[in-house]
Amino acid sequence: MRKVFTYYALRIISMSSDKLIEGLQDKANKLRIHSIRTTTKAGSGHPTTCLSAADIVSALFFHTMRYDPYDPTNPNNDRFVLSKGHAAPLLYAAYAEAGAIPIEKLDTLREIDSELEGHPTPRFKWADVATGSLGQGLSIGVGMALNGKYLDKLDYRVYVLMGDGESAEGSVLEAAALAAYYKLDNLVGIVDVNGMGQSQHTMYSFDIESYQKRFEAFGWHTIGIDGHNLSEIVAALDEAKSTADKPTMIVARTLKGKGVSLIEDKDGWHGKPLSEDEMKLALKELDKPASDYKFPPRNSESELGAKWQDGKRARRQGNSLPSSPLAPLPSSVASGESAPPNYKIGEEVATRNGFGTGLAKLGDVSALVVSLDGDTKNSTYAQDFMKAHPDRYFECFIAEQNMVGAAVGLSSRGKIPFVSTFAAFLTRAFDHIRMSAISDANIKYVGSHCGTSIGQDGPSQMGLEDIAMMRAIPNSVVVYPSDAVSAEKLVAEVAQHKGIAYLRTSRPKTPVLYPNNEEFKIGGCKILRSNDNDEVTVVSAGITIHEALKAYEILKKEGIHIRVIDAYSVKPIDEETLKQSASETNNTIICVEDHYYDGGLGDAVLNAVAKHGVFVHKMAVKELPRSGKPEELMELYGISAGCIVKQVLEVKG
Amino acid sequence: MRKVFTYYALRIISMSSDKLIEGLQDKANKLRIHSIRTTTKAGSGHPTTCLSAADIVSALFFHTMRYDPYDPTNPNNDRFVLSKGHAAPLLYAAYAEAGAIPIEKLDTLREIDSELEGHPTPRFKWADVATGSLGQGLSIGVGMALNGKYLDKLDYRVYVLMGDGESAEGSVLEAAALAAYYKLDNLVGIVDVNGMGQSQHTMYSFDIESYQKRFEAFGWHTIGIDGHNLSEIVAALDEAKSTADKPTMIVARTLKGKGVSLIEDKDGWHGKPLSEDEMKLALKELDKPASDYKFPPRNSESELGAKWQDGKRARRQGNSLPSSPLAPLPSSVASGESAPPNYKIGEEVATRNGFGTGLAKLGDVSALVVSLDGDTKNSTYAQDFMKAHPDRYFECFIAEQNMVGAAVGLSSRGKIPFVSTFAAFLTRAFDHIRMSAISDANIKYVGSHCGTSIGQDGPSQMGLEDIAMMRAIPNSVVVYPSDAVSAEKLVAEVAQHKGIAYLRTSRPKTPVLYPNNEEFKIGGCKILRSNDNDEVTVVSAGITIHEALKAYEILKKEGIHIRVIDAYSVKPIDEETLKQSASETNNTIICVEDHYYDGGLGDAVLNAVAKHGVFVHKMAVKELPRSGKPEELMELYGISAGCIVKQVLEVKG
Repeated sequence: MRKVFTYYALRIISMSSDKLIEGLQDKANKLRIHSIRTTTKAGSGHPTTCLSAADIVSALFFHTMRYDPYDPTNPNNDRFVLSKGHAAPLLYAAYAEAGAIPIEKLDTLREIDSELEGHPTPRFKWADVATGSLGQGLSIGVGMALNGKYLDKLDYRVYVLMGDGESAEGSVLEAAALAAYYKLDNLVGIVDVNGMGQSQHTMYSFDIESYQKRFEAFGWHTIGIDGHNLSEIVAALDEAKSTADKPTMIVARTLKGKGVSLIEDKDGWHGKPLSEDEMKLALKELDKPASDYKFPPRNSESELGAKWQDGKRARRQGNSLPSSPLAPLPSSVASGESAPPNYKIGEEVATRNGFGTGLAKLGDVSALVVSLDGDTKNSTYAQDFMKAHPDRYFECFIAEQNMVGAAVGLSSRGKIPFVSTFAAFLTRAFDHIRMSAISDANIKYVGSHCGTSIGQDGPSQMGLEDIAMMRAIPNSVVVYPSDAVSAEKLVAEVAQHKGIAYLRTSRPKTPVLYPNNEEFKIGGCKILRSNDNDEVTVVSAGITIHEALKAYEILKKEGIHIRVIDAYSVKPIDEETLKQSASETNNTIICVEDHYYDGGLGDAVLNAVAKHGVFVHKMAVKELPRSGKPEELMELYGISAGCIVKQVLEVKG
Repeated sequence: MRKVFTYYALRIISMSSDKLIEGLQDKANKLRIHSIRTTTKAGSGHPTTCLSAADIVSALFFHTMRYDPYDPTNPNNDRFVLSKGHAAPLLYAAYAEAGAIPIEKLDTLREIDSELEGHPTPRFKWADVATGSLGQGLSIGVGMALNGKYLDKLDYRVYVLMGDGESAEGSVLEAAALAAYYKLDNLVGIVDVNGMGQSQHTMYSFDIESYQKRFEAFGWHTIGIDGHNLSEIVAALDEAKSTADKPTMIVARTLKGKGVSLIEDKDGWHGKPLSEDEMKLALKELDKPASDYKFPPRNSESELGAKWQDGKRARRQGNSLPSSPLAPLPSSVASGESAPPNYKIGEEVATRNGFGTGLAKLGDVSALVVSLDGDTKNSTYAQDFMKAHPDRYFECFIAEQNMVGAAVGLSSRGKIPFVSTFAAFLTRAFDHIRMSAISDANIKYVGSHCGTSIGQDGPSQMGLEDIAMMRAIPNSVVVYPSDAVSAEKLVAEVAQHKGIAYLRTSRPKTPVLYPNNEEFKIGGCKILRSNDNDEVTVVSAGITIHEALKAYEILKKEGIHIRVIDAYSVKPIDEETLKQSASETNNTIICVEDHYYDGGLGDAVLNAVAKHGVFVHKMAVKELPRSGKPEELMELYGISAGCIVKQVLEVKG
């Protein structure tokens, strides 16, 4: 642990010229001016948090980071994640000063047609990801660093700027643990310790050593500095570069509002712009003589250097590298079709097994596919992928939020992460999943052990609100296979779909329903049973399809015919087929699902067909369930074959 | 930091008699036998994780903890939280051995009509809370310990038994931070380090010191022990009792499956019961001579002692106590009605202010109400409560999961926690919220800054999936006030409702619509505009009610009348009134809300009236929004007054 204000005095002399430091101070001053001015113009925003981090960002953008400000897509660019997303004006100012966007553009901050949003989103091309829900940046950085070190093997480095307040989020420590586990020496975190949260001082105020102690306990190299001393900042960032086998956390003591006496270290200024008059005073205070230091162009060979080879990609050098081969970068998701499923109709296979098999096969034809699981791989069957493609599997242990954040980072570097755990435990990461959508990430979530049909383990392990959660996200895709064939096929389908998709799998073994060559398009459904005289359409998906098919047989013996539809694509749902089918079956649909009543397949169906005058009878789990055998529970909660039969008879009247 | 296997040899001699240790070993052996036998009988469960913790549980239940095994409601009982909920058979075995339930009852493990579920739920009376989603127990313990130390001021102690795998969850470290901040020396955590997760070894395997280092970095006293050496366990638990001003974490090195050679420290045995034959071998191995040690009755005066006073309650003794007065324990939620709202019709007040004012007033008449906020109290206005009732406000910093877990702990001790943050950030704690419902907790969640109407801060800050999330939970109540009067009134309403409730508040100021004496029952709605010749019913809530009222005025000028309904109670929704109103307005409802399209008020309305043949036109946010002015955004995403007018005209045809 480096102590604050001790180590650097000596080192600085050899590290940085006085002129460089002057130049960086000048840039920091400019960043402060932009931050103050643009937030006042916008009438909202967080100037004080920009000012505390201005010196750090100056050093990063104008000394430490190697990147082409004119090409955000350059794979060799060092990555910067502004975890404290409310300092967005500072980020935009830095890119403007770097030449990436015109200075005048800064005046559009927070306007409805500007990509310079209140918190960064990928609408701003230099923001790889969205931030603003605090405590997610380090996880994203972990994903980017995993990609650089283990997949693309590029020597870009990843810098994550965090606030001190947000480091109270447990996900930050989940990220810290995994970063150390994977020895991510290409990852650098900087905590901007300005001591103030939104509503009061942070838990640790200015106790720099306490931050260092905690990150060190997780296996990080840490350096404590004065975050307004550019010599110290530069030296610390240099030291991070030369630290092998572990990530580095720089803990910087700063002052909120630094440089403007009206707001410097003053309470009550979080998220408040200065008034016009206050701004004028502030700008006067920041009116300092400019430095004549000439920064070298950042996109020159000396900056990105020998990395500009091989289609703008270069292998990471040095012997600290893992020995796995460089993954190829195919131009499409897959270089061919996955090997087809290989089951017999009626064979008993759980859809979670179908997922595992399908993912392993997909990995054979797509180098972009990676898998992350949270110590449930032997239950979700992500282990099938891990066994086939160990270099592209990342064990995330029992820490779902970081797992999703890391997937966002991997996605931002062009990978297609499949993130799997129990459906119930995906709820742990809802905020991260929500943010992954805002980050425009290309992630496939896989939730196993859905519903009461898991049985004896009881309600804590049952995913019963997962469809509601995933449907709520705009433009998401939700699929729910009922057999191993559809599970395998849907793995490939969601991989081809760009964006957020959710695949829901079940624990119990169920008979294979479909031939191996059946196709399952997103947005489709399958009519499994159909007669001319069907009296009602039963729509279902997943485990309850098998109950519907049993109900079909029971009713058939009574001379009652029902249509049975497998709505494997819950979102988008096949409105046309449902509507058509309902019109042929007394405008009546019974929808049955192993999910809570609100937000599941039933609501998807209702939304699709109610407007066409179709009556929908929803059968779903209406109360908090308990432990028991799967079949007992499905009976108790009203979604068994017997319950479907009863509901059909009731509807028939 | 105490080193493993060093410190205790000396201490033990004075601490515990050989006989006691023999007795505890015998109990541990019995717990192992029950755990093996009952999981084999059930055909599922996690025997190996029970065996690793059997010695620890023996020491806790038969030496350290003070509790009346015949009265789980005794407020002086030490609390035990089995965070590693999959060791449930061990928990049940301990209570059976303690005399709380008949030994024979253990045979019902995991049966559908048994309260001995696969993971503990409050159906088992001695389980205060449900566990099984890992990494939540320590937060719950924090809530219980906060209650003991700062509210009820009882000297019960709180013991949380965790697995090593689950300590990878960030929420554990959120809890660790807050526990140290509040100096919870009545809280003891025990990590059962058996080195194995579900699918592989944990990140830190048997590195006991690494666990200690991390908890110490968070300000805990830590003790490393051999978790199978009962002398060490007893001594460590005694040491924890005598540790002031900080919580204690005991890190115990154990072996999964300890005591049965077939499964001891063997891979591939997570969550697997032994076969009948394997069980027989195991039981043979566990067949040891019984101890003749006589444990003193746990409900005797010597155990619960002088604490049995004052209606079974006693003040906590000693000078480490906070100086705040003992909270009274009223028999009902409130000793009277809150002071009424005090607004003028048309006055501009945000509903978040209404919440803050209402909560502070409720605190005046109910000592059970407590408030928790995650460093957003000056935005949610929980600060109004904090100022009025500082002793019952707990600052949880930016760590929403732990905040909810702590609320579960407080609720289990009879408090009514109001948990507030931005609606968007409640998604961070969805798993904890889901589990709070399974814990049968009495918690009121309050999400501010909902919807696009927050404006320039952008999508990361906008709660747009919160209604979907909260509606999905069975038996939840969801209310969404549109003005300060209804906000204040609904605070009191949800407090009176036992269970999970969600109050959604908005950022912008909106005109007061209701007189101060208006009543707002859960399950009701308000017809705000009504004429005989209404052509359509517009249903809304919150911010968009004001858009609907503007639309009403615009349309009125055109001679078109619409009915406007404030559906402030989203769940349960007033089906009868909606149905009746629709029947008077061409069976047509337009529903408008500042929420994503799926899972919000629109779906609540659709579910209520579609079955009555009413056509519902949903207006909601259909894409990921951006930064902009509130009015611009509401226009852009189709939920403004102008958009409502357009929709009405379109529906009218």
